Amino acid sequence: MRSFASDNASGVHPAVMDSLVAANVDHALAYGDDAWTERATQRFREVFGAPVEVCLVWGGTGANVVSLQSLVRPWSAVVCTANAHIAVDECGAPERFTGAKLLTFPSVDGKLTPADVVASQVGRGDEHHAQATVVSVTQSTECGTLYSAAELRAICDAAHGFGMRVHLDGARLANAVAALGCDVRALTVDAGVDVVSFGGTKNGMMYGEAVIFCDPALGADAKFIRKQATQLPSKMRFVAAQFEALLTDDLWIRNAEHANAMARRLADAVRDIPGVRLAREPEVNSVFVRLPADAIARLQAESFFWTWDETVDEVRWMTSFDTTTADIDEFAATVRRVLA
Amino acid sequence: MRSFASDNASGVHPAVMDSLVAANVDHALAYGDDAWTERATQRFREVFGAPVEVCLVWGGTGANVVSLQSLVRPWSAVVCTANAHIAVDECGAPERFTGAKLLTFPSVDGKLTPADVVASQVGRGDEHHAQATVVSVTQSTECGTLYSAAELRAICDAAHGFGMRVHLDGARLANAVAALGCDVRALTVDAGVDVVSFGGTKNGMMYGEAVIFCDPALGADAKFIRKQATQLPSKMRFVAAQFEALLTDDLWIRNAEHANAMARRLADAVRDIPGVRLAREPEVNSVFVRLPADAIARLQAESFFWTWDETVDEVRWMTSFDTTTADIDEFAATVRRVLA
Amino acid sequence: MRSFASDNASGVHPAVMDSLVAANVDHALAYGDDAWTERATQRFREVFGAPVEVCLVWGGTGANVVSLQSLVRPWSAVVCTANAHIAVDECGAPERFTGAKLLTFPSVDGKLTPADVVASQVGRGDEHHAQATVVSVTQSTECGTLYSAAELRAICDAAHGFGMRVHLDGARLANAVAALGCDVRALTVDAGVDVVSFGGTKNGMMYGEAVIFCDPALGADAKFIRKQATQLPSKMRFVAAQFEALLTDDLWIRNAEHANAMARRLADAVRDIPGVRLAREPEVNSVFVRLPADAIARLQAESFFWTWDETVDEVRWMTSFDTTTADIDEFAATVRRVLA
Amino acid sequence: MRSFASDNASGVHPAVMDSLVAANVDHALAYGDDAWTERATQRFREVFGAPVEVCLVWGGTGANVVSLQSLVRPWSAVVCTANAHIAVDECGAPERFTGAKLLTFPSVDGKLTPADVVASQVGRGDEHHAQATVVSVTQSTECGTLYSAAELRAICDAAHGFGMRVHLDGARLANAVAALGCDVRALTVDAGVDVVSFGGTKNGMMYGEAVIFCDPALGADAKFIRKQATQLPSKMRFVAAQFEALLTDDLWIRNAEHANAMARRLADAVRDIPGVRLAREPEVNSVFVRLPADAIARLQAESFFWTWDETVDEVRWMTSFDTTTADIDEFAATVRRVLA
Repeated sequence: MRSFASDNASGVHPAVMDSLVAANVDHALAYGDDAWTERATQRFREVFGAPVEVCLVWGGTGANVVSLQSLVRPWSAVVCTANAHIAVDECGAPERFTGAKLLTFPSVDGKLTPADVVASQVGRGDEHHAQATVVSVTQSTECGTLYSAAELRAICDAAHGFGMRVHLDGARLANAVAALGCDVRALTVDAGVDVVSFGGTKNGMMYGEAVIFCDPALGADAKFIRKQATQLPSKMRFVAAQFEALLTDDLWIRNAEHANAMARRLADAVRDIPGVRLAREPEVNSVFVRLPADAIARLQAESFFWTWDETVDEVRWMTSFDTTTADIDEFAATVRRVLA
Repeated sequence: MRSFASDNASGVHPAVMDSLVAANVDHALAYGDDAWTERATQRFREVFGAPVEVCLVWGGTGANVVSLQSLVRPWSAVVCTANAHIAVDECGAPERFTGAKLLTFPSVDGKLTPADVVASQVGRGDEHHAQATVVSVTQSTECGTLYSAAELRAICDAAHGFGMRVHLDGARLANAVAALGCDVRALTVDAGVDVVSFGGTKNGMMYGEAVIFCDPALGADAKFIRKQATQLPSKMRFVAAQFEALLTDDLWIRNAEHANAMARRLADAVRDIPGVRLAREPEVNSVFVRLPADAIARLQAESFFWTWDETVDEVRWMTSFDTTTADIDEFAATVRRVLA
Repeated sequence: MRSFASDNASGVHPAVMDSLVAANVDHALAYGDDAWTERATQRFREVFGAPVEVCLVWGGTGANVVSLQSLVRPWSAVVCTANAHIAVDECGAPERFTGAKLLTFPSVDGKLTPADVVASQVGRGDEHHAQATVVSVTQSTECGTLYSAAELRAICDAAHGFGMRVHLDGARLANAVAALGCDVRALTVDAGVDVVSFGGTKNGMMYGEAVIFCDPALGADAKFIRKQATQLPSKMRFVAAQFEALLTDDLWIRNAEHANAMARRLADAVRDIPGVRLAREPEVNSVFVRLPADAIARLQAESFFWTWDETVDEVRWMTSFDTTTADIDEFAATVRRVLA
Repeated sequence: MRSFASDNASGVHPAVMDSLVAANVDHALAYGDDAWTERATQRFREVFGAPVEVCLVWGGTGANVVSLQSLVRPWSAVVCTANAHIAVDECGAPERFTGAKLLTFPSVDGKLTPADVVASQVGRGDEHHAQATVVSVTQSTECGTLYSAAELRAICDAAHGFGMRVHLDGARLANAVAALGCDVRALTVDAGVDVVSFGGTKNGMMYGEAVIFCDPALGADAKFIRKQATQLPSKMRFVAAQFEALLTDDLWIRNAEHANAMARRLADAVRDIPGVRLAREPEVNSVFVRLPADAIARLQAESFFWTWDETVDEVRWMTSFDTTTADIDEFAATVRRVLA
């Protein structure tokens, strides 16, 4: 079975699996008091080029919840786009756990703007309104678009100007780094991001994400937050071992580059099929296309994927580190056949 | 490195690791819509001998939070012992997530009694008091003791008599089943337990626990609860594949039997060492001993373990599926040397 | 000092104050176990023409929180307009307390539509999304507009068709009843509303609101919710005594009729002043006008009121049961002078 | 009807009612932006002899919730006695709202000790345990006992030594001040208390309590907390006007002195009745007595009061500012008759 439903339909990269097998030796103290966690932490600091605090967790929603809880009080509001993952795909987990509100701004391309940050400040200081003290951006975005380093910095500058903090949901940060050809530091520490949800699962890991505190002081309570959020893995070495593999020899970048390349290839393979309209050119590992309404269900029946926007018959196809050119050829043929 | 600090210092059973490697093939839809999850669910139903609902999650605190949330409203109180894991080892996660109170009863052996259940009903119906509508028992208990099937049934009967529901924290349920020589159904479905946190991690898995709804109707909202509690694994097949291995050919029982046997062996190896006093005979995979106060830190420095009760210098040593007789010989020799 | 800032700048109606003074006799058991509460409850049942459950609380946000908590689970979403009081004026209290999300729909006139209810069902059943199971409408709305009984019924029918429940924020329900000339039953019980926040404070009371369960079964846990939400008044007789006065001889309707009439009079007094543009004709006790941007602060300095929409220089003036024609004459003169 | 059930069965002191009537003049801006609130705040500062921050709220549970929320994070634990009002009489509201745990210590007389504070620190710094960072004491206690100023200071010193903060639940602080004959500053600011819930309702007010931040910096977010906790009264002047009356000419002390004197008189009136055993001599306005088990219900049927401890047939009788000597004579006669 091959799928373009999501990059989390993928398996585990062989190097990551090898690292898991290799870590399965002897005993190790639980909860991160082990050599693997120490090495993975060190690896993150090298990759970020800064003395970041690292907090390993189970999953992506968990990473976002731990990140946001580190930044908010219950009367805070978190500024994000209306299609942010935290706003629409986490069953309200961020609000449920933190008590804070999400203050969403409409966005056609999934990108927040400094103007949104400014607009969020209406009601600041007024007890009747949740206080917009945190910004959350997603890189690469849920729409498969990218912020440039300069755009991120502009948002962070606007936010910091109001005493706000900035969270970056980086479930697909690797794809952004690969696409922009910069290093991760430029998109995070140097841009002024305070806390990053760093994705592992969608980029070749079995499970595991990391919360990266660019400002280490913000991580002071992270261990309590992680435990209370049910996000503390006991056999932590196995999360750490995966990250160790992923962050070695730029595997995380290479995986993302491949996924990105596969999305471009998929776009090219379908763009001329009658009935297929690319919503935009792929920038990372997703292809958004609009299809004839009646074709969507038939195509999903052959190879499941998610409808992105029912109102305009737009669907999303995602590629991953383990998407093959054969996968694309076969899927493109299916699309062509179904739409014929 | 070998450790008696906890059964989660152990590694992954080879059969479980093989199952993980075998599951790493092709693509699979995320969030449980895959063949592994279907098979694991079926396996659970066979093992429990009942049409239970199965909800796979990341970790033990997560399993407890999902279980309890399925049973409580925010003005509920959950009746448990004062040393229950949910009460003292989860950083307040159950209360934080559910809003409910824990109503704790003192216990020397970690076991709740029907009399505690009766006593919890003071204030029932009175709006000034949280309403004790749920009982949570741990089997085997945090103190390494066991409820008989009859004892569990008596608690469940008392609880159901007040319209309460019963949760069983089974992080080490396998050890109880192995020790009591019964099947798991006798300790859960037949005893009247409503929801079980079924442990995997401490019994040979890399990660993963299951919430088992003995009354399937109670699982109606479980998928929303799991997601909102950040406990929904995306690449679910890898949790399921582990449980599939664990529940095949009674591996889960065999692992637990081994761990239990190693605890008895450890008790025998140290019981005559001057200064060592067994707090009680091991019933499952833990050995509780009292040591000379000054020896504890020195022994921990050689091989870390947790102090259980500082006030009486009682410590806890835990064995696991991968504890070897050589581990025990070496540790017993260390104890003898340090206490000499 | 006289003010058009809000109807809660008003004082206490003399009949209500008399009732408070009269209730200050002897002792009465706390928490509602008194004759005043019994009589007020009975009065509500007469006014609603139905065996409603009545739960008296301190304030408006409290009434909304208790109402919504009676209807939601933490993974629920509450459908409302983007300018609903619960969404923008309660500092996130509903979400904080209930864990549920607010799913807001844009609205120019403060009114939700059945189409919004339909649109809210995208993602129903999908664990990644909060479940839209409750609708909350405000009558009269935050924009000073009205739902007809037929409009309310259409929304309730749409909601019930999806198994949803309907909450009506009636902080100014009296003004709606007065304006529409119907009885309150037509706008609540008969329209299909499940729970009502019934306002007292803005209509002549010192403090106190009521949660009215049109479906009495929904109030089964209300007493626990009220206590846990810190909304249980101990000396309840003084809340009840106020409602008793308000609900006697249609005082609540007469107060609202007066406030509504004063708003029409204010609109008439200012509509021809150069620079004043009525945003819409007043339907209840508020006048929304757009003013020259530079005049707003100067006018506020003379007599404070709230800016409603900064982006279009729209402000809100509210009248109350104790607004006098002299108040209006004086204020209109001030507006004329400042805008000259 | 006269009652010894609770001091909140009492009515409103005439001077307080007069102040309410006097405040009912003209309009006043809502939410505390009025002259009454300014004057009441100033009065509190005079009474406390310090530049305290004052936050007026509806009720006692609300005051405690706002106080505690100002001091905790969700992973905190609040140290208190097992019979603290926050632990047993607020339906879990403090935990529900703040997410924090209550860490209760048994106490026969309702008083916490410095040793309890020390004991609470087990697990400090360990992510598996809620972090005991706040102490909450009640003065006068739920058992009708008193902390001396020195005892309070010892607890505060112990707490501050661990970086903890101290909350004082002063629902009956007036009774303590009256009984100890000191000023309130000695029991709060000077003793090291950080935040006080200052009671009004039980001491002659209709409704209303105050949160007093002895350390004004701790009140920085209080306005947001109060609003989000649904504890912000809109027509605030009427809360403030009551406190203004209560804090004038020591009315609050005089009311409490009277209530205390009535409790002593009641104790004297019943101590020799066969079957009545005083649990302890009254220190403030409560009398705890043990009665023949079969007499309790019969006596409650004549004049309702609460059973305090079912296990030892102990009941509580409370006096208030408006208890008369005739009330006592009549009640004592009833007791004598029922027990005969």
